[in-house]
Amino acid sequence: MAAGDFRDVIRRAREGRAIPEDMVRVARGAASGEVPDYQLAAWLMAVAIKGLDEPTALALTEAMAASGGAPAVHPGRVDKHSTGGVGDKTTLVVAPLVASLGVPVAKMSGRGLGHTGGTLDKLESIPGFRVELEREEIRRIVKEAGVVVAAQTEDLAPADGRLYALRDVTETVDSLPLIASSIMAKKLAGGSPAILLDVKVGRGAFMARLEEARELARLMLAIAARAGRRAEALLTDMDQPLGFAVGNALEVNEARATLLGRGPADFTALVVRVAGRMLALADFAGDPEAAVRAALDDGTAFERFLTWVEAQGGRRAVLEAGDLEVAPRVAAVEARRAGVVTSVDPLKVGRAALRLGAGRLRKGDPVDPGVGVRVLAKVGARVAPGDVLAEIFARTPEAGAEARAVVDAAIEIGPSAPARPIVLEHLTA
Amino acid sequence: MAAGDFRDVIRRAREGRAIPEDMVRVARGAASGEVPDYQLAAWLMAVAIKGLDEPTALALTEAMAASGGAPAVHPGRVDKHSTGGVGDKTTLVVAPLVASLGVPVAKMSGRGLGHTGGTLDKLESIPGFRVELEREEIRRIVKEAGVVVAAQTEDLAPADGRLYALRDVTETVDSLPLIASSIMAKKLAGGSPAILLDVKVGRGAFMARLEEARELARLMLAIAARAGRRAEALLTDMDQPLGFAVGNALEVNEARATLLGRGPADFTALVVRVAGRMLALADFAGDPEAAVRAALDDGTAFERFLTWVEAQGGRRAVLEAGDLEVAPRVAAVEARRAGVVTSVDPLKVGRAALRLGAGRLRKGDPVDPGVGVRVLAKVGARVAPGDVLAEIFARTPEAGAEARAVVDAAIEIGPSAPARPIVLEHLTA
Repeated sequence: MAAGDFRDVIRRAREGRAIPEDMVRVARGAASGEVPDYQLAAWLMAVAIKGLDEPTALALTEAMAASGGAPAVHPGRVDKHSTGGVGDKTTLVVAPLVASLGVPVAKMSGRGLGHTGGTLDKLESIPGFRVELEREEIRRIVKEAGVVVAAQTEDLAPADGRLYALRDVTETVDSLPLIASSIMAKKLAGGSPAILLDVKVGRGAFMARLEEARELARLMLAIAARAGRRAEALLTDMDQPLGFAVGNALEVNEARATLLGRGPADFTALVVRVAGRMLALADFAGDPEAAVRAALDDGTAFERFLTWVEAQGGRRAVLEAGDLEVAPRVAAVEARRAGVVTSVDPLKVGRAALRLGAGRLRKGDPVDPGVGVRVLAKVGARVAPGDVLAEIFARTPEAGAEARAVVDAAIEIGPSAPARPIVLEHLTA
Repeated sequence: MAAGDFRDVIRRAREGRAIPEDMVRVARGAASGEVPDYQLAAWLMAVAIKGLDEPTALALTEAMAASGGAPAVHPGRVDKHSTGGVGDKTTLVVAPLVASLGVPVAKMSGRGLGHTGGTLDKLESIPGFRVELEREEIRRIVKEAGVVVAAQTEDLAPADGRLYALRDVTETVDSLPLIASSIMAKKLAGGSPAILLDVKVGRGAFMARLEEARELARLMLAIAARAGRRAEALLTDMDQPLGFAVGNALEVNEARATLLGRGPADFTALVVRVAGRMLALADFAGDPEAAVRAALDDGTAFERFLTWVEAQGGRRAVLEAGDLEVAPRVAAVEARRAGVVTSVDPLKVGRAALRLGAGRLRKGDPVDPGVGVRVLAKVGARVAPGDVLAEIFARTPEAGAEARAVVDAAIEIGPSAPARPIVLEHLTA
């Protein structure tokens, strides 16, 4: 394909009349390197502004999914995806939880960029845990432990890899069809027959408004349906951090507590719902949520967690004995007045954790597993002066003081606020 | 400037709220190479879709004009610019014409891309004519001959050079603020105190509709005014080819005929008007159009043309004696019915000339000086069956036959059509 021909594809995108046939040229051109970065960048901006209709978004998704060759036969029966948020450690709990109830889970994950580490960074805070796995290892671990979470391989939807890297530097990340096709291309290429989508809504999410999140979820469900996959979506709250912990080892510890039935109420409620719907999508016999609760209460889920950690090279004994080590708790945010927590800005909390070293600004930057924030204050909670609203885990008192100020500014106290439900909507295809 | 910072500039453009301060970062980043192509491409697409307000377009123009360092003191007193069209050989006539009336003209020109060659290609079809001149040569030639037309030097608004190359491959050429700032950056950097803008309107122009052309002209005039330059704009017809000739040597020959007072009516009318307004902008004493007509009739203009050609290395004797050699006239398009010419599609005629070899598709491609088309049919003319409507000058009968079919399809004959005026509007600042 000559570079000149791609101009027609760009032109149609610019005029808001991109067609499904163009999408194969985008995906192939991106994967092969034949279309230069500057043409892809112009195309991405045109799509970010003008959008894609549903058949075209589906065509893009399928073309990107196919860009790495034929999909592997998926070793798991159900997959999940979260659009990401602050303190989102859901995979760490639901993957072993669902597996402990007899449904194998194999999940590929990308590296986190932004406020906090991604799922892979969280898992790597467990001593010895390996996420870079070969295809054969992935199969073996699912067979042995019923659960695996691995870094996505380079041949998984490579067109998406190139486009995603460009979106990141061209301010075209926040586009419904680009988000939906990027997520779903990896899910389709992964090959799982069923997918549970956790679409976050609120200030800490891609989608700040329920309406937008619903649109994104509907588009992803439509793509899944047209591609012959079973899928459902939960729209869940990300207008405050999820659970208490924000930071890699802190989040593993919170996942551990949750698997032992001692997790924060909001996070536990989310886990029960997500795991329940994953089981339902995998045709689980019986009441999935009741089974999930039992597995959290009787130690079944935690036992599977330990088995999984061990299967991926992690030191089982460490997590069996207690929490992972974290940085010193160097500061606390305390309530200065009595009242009700009316707002906890997740972006500010995320930014505080990022500055402490829990996340990365640039690809390849290292993350500090031990640092982070625990925000104990939840919207709707009544507080008295002196109550600890948040704890800062940092390497130095100076870094802690800086983060403390940011987190302090993130929390608002007023006369009253309704508690928010964690699951806002449940969409089926 | 870190690449990351430029994301803010892209973001504001994407949201239609670009600010003048951003433009310095665009121009400097483009000129220095610090901002990568893909970020500039995304920014260009955002601007192509969302536009720039007038102060921001001015800021972009001035930042691009300044990107090559301080402007040279312009050796001419008036400059002109045409937005380009099919058969546009106006500069070849008006430059020596205005000079012959005592007003020095120094014009920098870019290489043509598209249907036909640009002004430089047309001039280079004169044996010996050199357009790649050093700064000092340009000054000397203006001093000696009163007129010079040279290839623009690389230090003339280099930011525009980089952005223009990217626009060409990212489908962002047709954007009012990008067109206006690109043209005016070079005019401002060139340093001429007065500028006559010839904005083409019709199917063969950037701007097909009068409304758009007026908007472009107004934006360029506003930029000129804010930058302290005298400027006027003529909106002129490009809904049919200008004059008869389309092709490099054919156009030189038509320019020669026009300088001898024997040019096509439409082209002569345009030349009189453009040269007249250029003289007026340069404070010419007396009636400029009467002076122009006299200079065309009495040989003054033609004499200056020969002097100019000689000063830039061209063989004066060739043009003194007669026309430049052209390819053989291998085919003619004849009227098949009686009637009035209702339409001559300039894009089709341009495409025919391009295929014959008169223009280039890619930068650096050679052009054939001798090939082209002469379209004798003008809208509003009455024709009888067998009348020659167009002549094809080609290297082979096959190429001629192909071009003939395209030109034949470009000309429509019907019951009646009003003749179009060549100058549609005259805008002053």
